[in-house]
Amino acid sequence: MNVYEERRKKINAWMTEEGITMVMFQHTEDQRDPGIRWITGFPGDGLLFLSSVSLCGSLLIPWDMNLAFIFSDVESLIPYNDFERKPIIALKAALEFFNISAGSKIEIPPVTPYPIFLEYLEAIADFDVLCRNNGVHAEIQTLRAIKDAEEIEIYRHIAGITNELIDLLEKNAKAGKLKTEGAAALFIEAECRKRGCEGVGFETLAAGPLRSYGIHPFPAYTMGDFATKGLSILDFGVSCFGYTSDVTLTFAKEPLTKPQERMLTLTERAYRSALSQVQSGIPTKDIAAGVDRLFSNAKKKMPHALGHGIGLEAHEFPMIRNRKDNNWILKPGMIFTLEPGLYDMAHGGCRLENDILLTENGAETLTNARIIRL
Amino acid sequence: MNVYEERRKKINAWMTEEGITMVMFQHTEDQRDPGIRWITGFPGDGLLFLSSVSLCGSLLIPWDMNLAFIFSDVESLIPYNDFERKPIIALKAALEFFNISAGSKIEIPPVTPYPIFLEYLEAIADFDVLCRNNGVHAEIQTLRAIKDAEEIEIYRHIAGITNELIDLLEKNAKAGKLKTEGAAALFIEAECRKRGCEGVGFETLAAGPLRSYGIHPFPAYTMGDFATKGLSILDFGVSCFGYTSDVTLTFAKEPLTKPQERMLTLTERAYRSALSQVQSGIPTKDIAAGVDRLFSNAKKKMPHALGHGIGLEAHEFPMIRNRKDNNWILKPGMIFTLEPGLYDMAHGGCRLENDILLTENGAETLTNARIIRL
Repeated sequence: MNVYEERRKKINAWMTEEGITMVMFQHTEDQRDPGIRWITGFPGDGLLFLSSVSLCGSLLIPWDMNLAFIFSDVESLIPYNDFERKPIIALKAALEFFNISAGSKIEIPPVTPYPIFLEYLEAIADFDVLCRNNGVHAEIQTLRAIKDAEEIEIYRHIAGITNELIDLLEKNAKAGKLKTEGAAALFIEAECRKRGCEGVGFETLAAGPLRSYGIHPFPAYTMGDFATKGLSILDFGVSCFGYTSDVTLTFAKEPLTKPQERMLTLTERAYRSALSQVQSGIPTKDIAAGVDRLFSNAKKKMPHALGHGIGLEAHEFPMIRNRKDNNWILKPGMIFTLEPGLYDMAHGGCRLENDILLTENGAETLTNARIIRL
Repeated sequence: MNVYEERRKKINAWMTEEGITMVMFQHTEDQRDPGIRWITGFPGDGLLFLSSVSLCGSLLIPWDMNLAFIFSDVESLIPYNDFERKPIIALKAALEFFNISAGSKIEIPPVTPYPIFLEYLEAIADFDVLCRNNGVHAEIQTLRAIKDAEEIEIYRHIAGITNELIDLLEKNAKAGKLKTEGAAALFIEAECRKRGCEGVGFETLAAGPLRSYGIHPFPAYTMGDFATKGLSILDFGVSCFGYTSDVTLTFAKEPLTKPQERMLTLTERAYRSALSQVQSGIPTKDIAAGVDRLFSNAKKKMPHALGHGIGLEAHEFPMIRNRKDNNWILKPGMIFTLEPGLYDMAHGGCRLENDILLTENGAETLTNARIIRL
């Protein structure tokens, strides 16, 4: 049984327990769900239907059949074009395909817009349509938060490439070969692909001293100065098999102002403090609250979360943030970022972000991002 | 009155006519709406509330205040962090901010997921919450389909840069300097930014002869062969002020097989046929149906739409497709693509895509994409 079959088996068991007969997944331009890739390996646009009636109940309805022949592990394939690329028509066809009896529970994506939900209710009025935040889709996101052996192996590979690029970026910056935001970002674009990556995991954010005040600079990168006097931020990830790393380097070029030095010191301290708290059983909220307290004692405020899980999405579970509704507890197999940062309109910003794997033996820092002094 | 104030005035008039007191827009990681940029100039994440009670009723709630100070044209700003970055809390605060009376009609985004919609209903039970496909948000998408003078000027600028890149790409390919998909994609990444673009409008799709069978290759580009014997597709757009171009070149390197020659000839014929139909008052469905007929007579089938509007999104209104529910009629001010293409597992694929502006005087082809024979 391959990894996709194993995952479908788990989902099938959960569906059976919950009495769900068929579930629908949608990965299209207006509604993204990398869960389809997790379940079948297929990275393209389309719909996926799983039926709990049989263990072979998987039907992929891809936009691009040519791509699906090559990339998908699934029992059945029908072109999306056969249904005018309309989810509602495909849904009705899937019910017929699996021969689902009237009255059965059919679960649709929890992100289904309310007006579309009403259309579904009308179109398949004979069925019990579920659209909820605690259904199959949420269960899959929870399963995805704990990486399996295959995923951890992929992450060790991605981290290796990421670390190679970090070292080269430091070397190039020190040699004066990284003088624009574009030079840094394009270097990553080219070098990750040379190493067999699918690409960057998200648009590289490169902000020279004039733009590092922003959490996420806009535009993501320009041809403006980078790694010149002051603080520059470089936030990037590289992706293999759909999984992305996510790290942030800060380049600090002397002479620095006192407030800049203080931001760097505090950020490094916050990072070490957070990392020292990482262990199985710890609520992630407590780690984030500790960092917020550390900054607050220094009369500073971090305007974003401390971190987040990574995987097929750059941001996924577990949450690592100081918010009342965050009930995530660290468990072995989780891979997540820690990324304290501070931002100032006058002095610029800094952030330090690494990817952490929690194993049975404790935290393992997969990546080597750091504050690089020039 | 600047362009953003003009747009808000139009929306305000529409809201007043429809009796909508406040409308909410959301542009966050899980729910994208470039409408906020169209209304305020702000390109970052956040929420926007417009009230029809006063002409100055615009409240932006950005994630990154530093970015908002620089980029937004809006009456009021409150940090999203003040509301735990939770739309529901911000929505309640906006109702208080504008002092909206109970019972008023409040419109929320039509893409609001059903479970979230239920939460809103409960949280602001005293108000009449609207979530519909034919409300303010749809009206704005319709307004955006007809570009104003300022937008047309931006498009002439973007088209100029796009055409410069097309010529350079042809020159480089002919000089043997475009030998990998990555070489083509990275050239565009760098050169568009050198010319002041925000970046590419979407991930560049570069597919050499081995991968051009896919409508959208996966991954978008690799370091594999490009513009070598057979058919290679290069689909890209460059973006300024948020607006993107969208063109596709096919590189055809001899010797070609007969089926390849035939695909090229048919695609060029389909493109010319479509362009010749473009005029004010024509249903776009008719143009797309004509191309489908042309291919069908040649025993071929195009697996995607003929084209689409472009603007702040790579795909926006008007639709240019042969589908029953497509009722779009061409009008002056519309900017859209025409992009016939054919794909074959054995012989590869080809597509020809240009951006067309419909003026009072007829079709104006803004871009010079073409099939380039090598």
